[in-house]
Amino acid sequence: MGKLAWGLIGGGEGSQIGPAHRLGAGLDGLFTFSAGALDHRPDAGRAYGQRLGLAAHRAYGDWQEMLAGEQARDDRVDLVTVATPNATHFEITKAFLEHGFHVLCEKPMTMTVEEGEEIVRIARASGRICAVNYGYTGYSLVRHMRAMVARGDLGAVRLVKAEFAHGHHADAADADNPRVRWRYDPAQAGISAQFADCGIHALHMASFVIGQEAERLSADTVSCIGSRVLEDDAMVNLRFDRGAVGRLWTSSVAIGRQHGLTLQVFGEKGGLRWSQEQPNQLYWMPLGGRLQVIERGETGLSPEADRTTRVTIGHAEGMPLAFANIYKDLAEAIRAQKENREIDPAANLFPRAEDGLRSMAAVVAVAESGKSEGAWKDARPPMFRDPAGDSSG
Amino acid sequence: MGKLAWGLIGGGEGSQIGPAHRLGAGLDGLFTFSAGALDHRPDAGRAYGQRLGLAAHRAYGDWQEMLAGEQARDDRVDLVTVATPNATHFEITKAFLEHGFHVLCEKPMTMTVEEGEEIVRIARASGRICAVNYGYTGYSLVRHMRAMVARGDLGAVRLVKAEFAHGHHADAADADNPRVRWRYDPAQAGISAQFADCGIHALHMASFVIGQEAERLSADTVSCIGSRVLEDDAMVNLRFDRGAVGRLWTSSVAIGRQHGLTLQVFGEKGGLRWSQEQPNQLYWMPLGGRLQVIERGETGLSPEADRTTRVTIGHAEGMPLAFANIYKDLAEAIRAQKENREIDPAANLFPRAEDGLRSMAAVVAVAESGKSEGAWKDARPPMFRDPAGDSSG
Amino acid sequence: MGKLAWGLIGGGEGSQIGPAHRLGAGLDGLFTFSAGALDHRPDAGRAYGQRLGLAAHRAYGDWQEMLAGEQARDDRVDLVTVATPNATHFEITKAFLEHGFHVLCEKPMTMTVEEGEEIVRIARASGRICAVNYGYTGYSLVRHMRAMVARGDLGAVRLVKAEFAHGHHADAADADNPRVRWRYDPAQAGISAQFADCGIHALHMASFVIGQEAERLSADTVSCIGSRVLEDDAMVNLRFDRGAVGRLWTSSVAIGRQHGLTLQVFGEKGGLRWSQEQPNQLYWMPLGGRLQVIERGETGLSPEADRTTRVTIGHAEGMPLAFANIYKDLAEAIRAQKENREIDPAANLFPRAEDGLRSMAAVVAVAESGKSEGAWKDARPPMFRDPAGDSSG
Amino acid sequence: MGKLAWGLIGGGEGSQIGPAHRLGAGLDGLFTFSAGALDHRPDAGRAYGQRLGLAAHRAYGDWQEMLAGEQARDDRVDLVTVATPNATHFEITKAFLEHGFHVLCEKPMTMTVEEGEEIVRIARASGRICAVNYGYTGYSLVRHMRAMVARGDLGAVRLVKAEFAHGHHADAADADNPRVRWRYDPAQAGISAQFADCGIHALHMASFVIGQEAERLSADTVSCIGSRVLEDDAMVNLRFDRGAVGRLWTSSVAIGRQHGLTLQVFGEKGGLRWSQEQPNQLYWMPLGGRLQVIERGETGLSPEADRTTRVTIGHAEGMPLAFANIYKDLAEAIRAQKENREIDPAANLFPRAEDGLRSMAAVVAVAESGKSEGAWKDARPPMFRDPAGDSSG
Repeated sequence: MGKLAWGLIGGGEGSQIGPAHRLGAGLDGLFTFSAGALDHRPDAGRAYGQRLGLAAHRAYGDWQEMLAGEQARDDRVDLVTVATPNATHFEITKAFLEHGFHVLCEKPMTMTVEEGEEIVRIARASGRICAVNYGYTGYSLVRHMRAMVARGDLGAVRLVKAEFAHGHHADAADADNPRVRWRYDPAQAGISAQFADCGIHALHMASFVIGQEAERLSADTVSCIGSRVLEDDAMVNLRFDRGAVGRLWTSSVAIGRQHGLTLQVFGEKGGLRWSQEQPNQLYWMPLGGRLQVIERGETGLSPEADRTTRVTIGHAEGMPLAFANIYKDLAEAIRAQKENREIDPAANLFPRAEDGLRSMAAVVAVAESGKSEGAWKDARPPMFRDPAGDSSG
Repeated sequence: MGKLAWGLIGGGEGSQIGPAHRLGAGLDGLFTFSAGALDHRPDAGRAYGQRLGLAAHRAYGDWQEMLAGEQARDDRVDLVTVATPNATHFEITKAFLEHGFHVLCEKPMTMTVEEGEEIVRIARASGRICAVNYGYTGYSLVRHMRAMVARGDLGAVRLVKAEFAHGHHADAADADNPRVRWRYDPAQAGISAQFADCGIHALHMASFVIGQEAERLSADTVSCIGSRVLEDDAMVNLRFDRGAVGRLWTSSVAIGRQHGLTLQVFGEKGGLRWSQEQPNQLYWMPLGGRLQVIERGETGLSPEADRTTRVTIGHAEGMPLAFANIYKDLAEAIRAQKENREIDPAANLFPRAEDGLRSMAAVVAVAESGKSEGAWKDARPPMFRDPAGDSSG
Repeated sequence: MGKLAWGLIGGGEGSQIGPAHRLGAGLDGLFTFSAGALDHRPDAGRAYGQRLGLAAHRAYGDWQEMLAGEQARDDRVDLVTVATPNATHFEITKAFLEHGFHVLCEKPMTMTVEEGEEIVRIARASGRICAVNYGYTGYSLVRHMRAMVARGDLGAVRLVKAEFAHGHHADAADADNPRVRWRYDPAQAGISAQFADCGIHALHMASFVIGQEAERLSADTVSCIGSRVLEDDAMVNLRFDRGAVGRLWTSSVAIGRQHGLTLQVFGEKGGLRWSQEQPNQLYWMPLGGRLQVIERGETGLSPEADRTTRVTIGHAEGMPLAFANIYKDLAEAIRAQKENREIDPAANLFPRAEDGLRSMAAVVAVAESGKSEGAWKDARPPMFRDPAGDSSG
Repeated sequence: MGKLAWGLIGGGEGSQIGPAHRLGAGLDGLFTFSAGALDHRPDAGRAYGQRLGLAAHRAYGDWQEMLAGEQARDDRVDLVTVATPNATHFEITKAFLEHGFHVLCEKPMTMTVEEGEEIVRIARASGRICAVNYGYTGYSLVRHMRAMVARGDLGAVRLVKAEFAHGHHADAADADNPRVRWRYDPAQAGISAQFADCGIHALHMASFVIGQEAERLSADTVSCIGSRVLEDDAMVNLRFDRGAVGRLWTSSVAIGRQHGLTLQVFGEKGGLRWSQEQPNQLYWMPLGGRLQVIERGETGLSPEADRTTRVTIGHAEGMPLAFANIYKDLAEAIRAQKENREIDPAANLFPRAEDGLRSMAAVVAVAESGKSEGAWKDARPPMFRDPAGDSSG
């Protein structure tokens, strides 16, 4: 089956989230990046889109133009990702849903509950998919936690403890830093800062894993840096709809924590612990048993886990990105050669034939030394033993 | 600038390494997968290539056909990856280099030193790039270790300690398992098993990081499982060409280790420690100082590290793959809808508008509770408070 | 200067806390165990005290007898430890203070606030020391955290996060287990279970480290196991008297956590993290810097830390207990020999002369092999090379 | 049964090893410190011994005097510990054994193999116990590893990997530091430095755990700091007498490692990993299973483990030393009061009645807040609410 067509709104040059979406959408070869309105400056957006490979007539100047253009096509995009500033999510998502497009909206989906309800109603009425990008639930072992809870490994869930605490806004001097200040300013950020930014990831993950929705909550919100109007730290106690108790801590002043999205689930029959900073291991203790380490990619995990892993057990899930760096180096090397220029020295690091040869010589030396009681052997290929022979050294 | 054209030899349906190369080559959008000879069965290879999106006339039946076909094209592939069985690497790599193609060859590059020297000579004579896929050196913090050594942070390197020890061949019952047995059989694997398979990764990484090449070595090789002719465990002592001492341990019977590629470097002025199973942290102790944790993505790292990271500090490098899983779910959901069938339940896990709405309601509840001394608030959106109103629960 | 005289009330045969106090009091040779009333059964207490080496007339039948007896002596005990059931702490502590003894009381000091205030008044009026055994604050690095806060390394403390969460009461079947049940029964345990048992350790440690006292709090207490009247899990939010915010979680149903006493302190200028399960490392990140590992015993720590460590850096603080096990083995070996009986096989594990000899032979072999390019050497002492010669093998 | 009498030779004022032996011997109350010859300066030794509580006539001036004196007594010491400089171990140990004393000798037991054999012969002939202080084998989980191997949990041991690598002699500037230099000088240290100092601990532990003795070895010894004659780093390959392969690394230039005594054992049916820096956890993976964490003190361990642990599961084994610090503070407080002087501020940190009272007030506040939907409560005892009332704040 052919690829699906994908469009992106927002994510202009220099944004962090745009490349992340292009990477995620393209990774498995399921989507072709076919249309985009990438920048609030129409010309910049059109030019950037074309640089990224879009056809000129599908590199749109704004989302309205894109909506009109795609609507008119037989091969219109199958999915639109909305990665614009938060305040615009609602109207763009609404418009595309109403015209029959599937949408993946960045979080937060809307700025108010009323807008959120309207989106839900439109999505339900239209039969279109409206997804929201709580991307951390995509981790293989998060999926497996959910499967373990669903199939009863933990019995009834008693307690879920979620944290998303980092220290990246802990410098009081940042009170004047515009890149940080707006986050704590109600005029720009709305009614909540740290909870709305990070806490909802932790809350969604807790709900996702235990299969229960929050019903009631009590919060203690504080601004540890006094000049902030909105909270930079919050503790939230929760009750979920099938009986679980929740405890959720989120902070942006926790110096020493880099990311800190962690989840612990305690049930009648066992407990689980997972952390985003070490996503390839899941700690599981059955009641009365020992702590065990579940490894991503081990045999016998749930279908939900198996479906969402691409790397064999023991490798970090990020291994393909290491791999991609070899290709990135090679692309630069090939281009430098084509353009008859020097290669970027930071890219001139890919292993080459000389390295492959040296490995072979080492293999021979190891085999021979191993057979002769550990006698020391020359580890170099013959052609490199004469110092003059190795121009690469 | 446009994408480069890329071709793949080997990596047929069901192989592990083929998808890894397609993923790596495609990740940054630098290469287009343009040609392939993917299977030793010509028909299977042609069909699979087309299913992967190759044009019919560039989905070749074997590598000779591909060599002939690509040679004849103006838009011939810029890079060919050789991911065939080890014994064929030499002739394929040689042929493509000789006809002017850049090549990325899987490890081991050749089966003998003589073949290796021939490849080096051809590559040098032709001016073509011949790279070898020691992919672990692509990790951002491995690049940074190299940069730290090169710029003198450690002073002269005294000692490098490398390990690649796992336990995946520790079951003596596997002596009869064909998927394992061939690895320890000289007729199929050559003169070395575990060192040639894993040890050379560790040795290459050691050389890469310290910027020195192995000159002499002494090895103790053993077959812990008696029925094996080739070694399943080896300890290798080394001397490098600018004075470093090396110690390298590799094993396939180390039950309890999943992957175990680790590197420690000790110099006059400090020590480093890194492990592939936790690739986002690098442990550094300057002489007389404290152990510090260098995080992938932190500001102020080397250009070599900066160039090879795609995810902000604190996230696991594998985060984009979690992200891609949301897109993978959505592709399945969209296709199921197009095909008027049920979605795969293991894919029906993407967050949706209801989740986005629930988050917004939680944000409001947190903000209100926070302002009223922690009073308990309803955390649900109004439309879900009437049980009949929430059909998604 | 001579040793001080020490007396113990409670801690009868089979108790856990009695040996811990005797170990702690005796460890540095500062106190002599001189008097005791160890059991609520007078005869059992007298007999046990004598078995532990007390003079017959100072192995008392009950605490009243001990109070009378010690009062009458010139060499009365300098310190009395009260390690009886919780409900009796108040009257015993009060009585000894009033008669001029220094007291170390197990926690909780009293069952009510009123009793607690009375003890404070008596202690103040009498000029006697009344200590309470929050023993975890004795860890060297906990003392160092306090010193770091006090000297301003963190600036003003914004937030302290304390946890004491374990899973040892997570089995619902224990609802009928008398060893667990009483803890959740108000008739026996008072008004609080998990907070009173564990939470107050965490709260005291938080106060101790930040040098601030709790002023106000809000708690969410739950009984995860429904049959319990008192809480088995609590989340407490706090405000301290010089501005710090506190968050304290305590649980006895957190399956997978063994002990879980941890403290995180976040200030204007840095953050700290410490855990009782790994007490020899303290994690410190200065604002804008890197995470560092402070090791117990490193040079340059505070006087408070230096005074409270007995083992050099890199050893676990429990090393002297490993050491003591060698002596324990030897005591058994010597006694078995004296009594002309077989040694307990579990004690027959101390290293002996043969091991010392083997080490020496290995040293020689290593030195010789090292001088001869790694030639293999016999590692055995000559006298053990003839198999008949080694009767210990 | 009464205590055994214990004597110490060496361990004078300021030594590190003397207090460690006194602590170890005294910890369980099994030995009374009864005699000593603590210093090579007779007067200093006699004075120090008396300060430590020895009777004047058993605080000897040298070991010969002690030998003569103790021989003549009916209540002579049951055990003599030899903790003098290495070169004197042989003659002292020999003399005491020959006169019928049990001896615990510090490592290395002798300077040569010949001396070692003589000690073994004397010990065997005399029937006296001659123990050697490889104290690390006293850890409870090291004992448990041995028991697991002995009872067959691992099947036949294939491979044992031992490390004792630290970085405390990594500073080349220490070449002139007399406290370090002698260790690498053959005139003072003999034929080996790092292996003789640390390596033999790791080798003994490996032998102890797997129940096999080293038969043959091959070593690569290097002096990473060029001015040293003896090795500061060694890699040793071994063959044990019942088939296990050994790999042992020891180093004193491994900057970033604090202690680094670790043991990994790989058998037919499973693998084990333990580290002295985290001695309370043992990692165990059965073949085909998951990695499990065995906790010191868990129920169901071997008798050898149970016998050698004093602290309940989840506490660090060093907890009694934290506890002892409270008593140490109290001793200082009591003495300061007796001597009418100020207490050492670093000792004025023990928890006191005010803390016990505050805890009680917090318990009440938690219970009340918990019952009233988390309403904020005053956490202070009434007597401290009036600022004037709390003189301790």
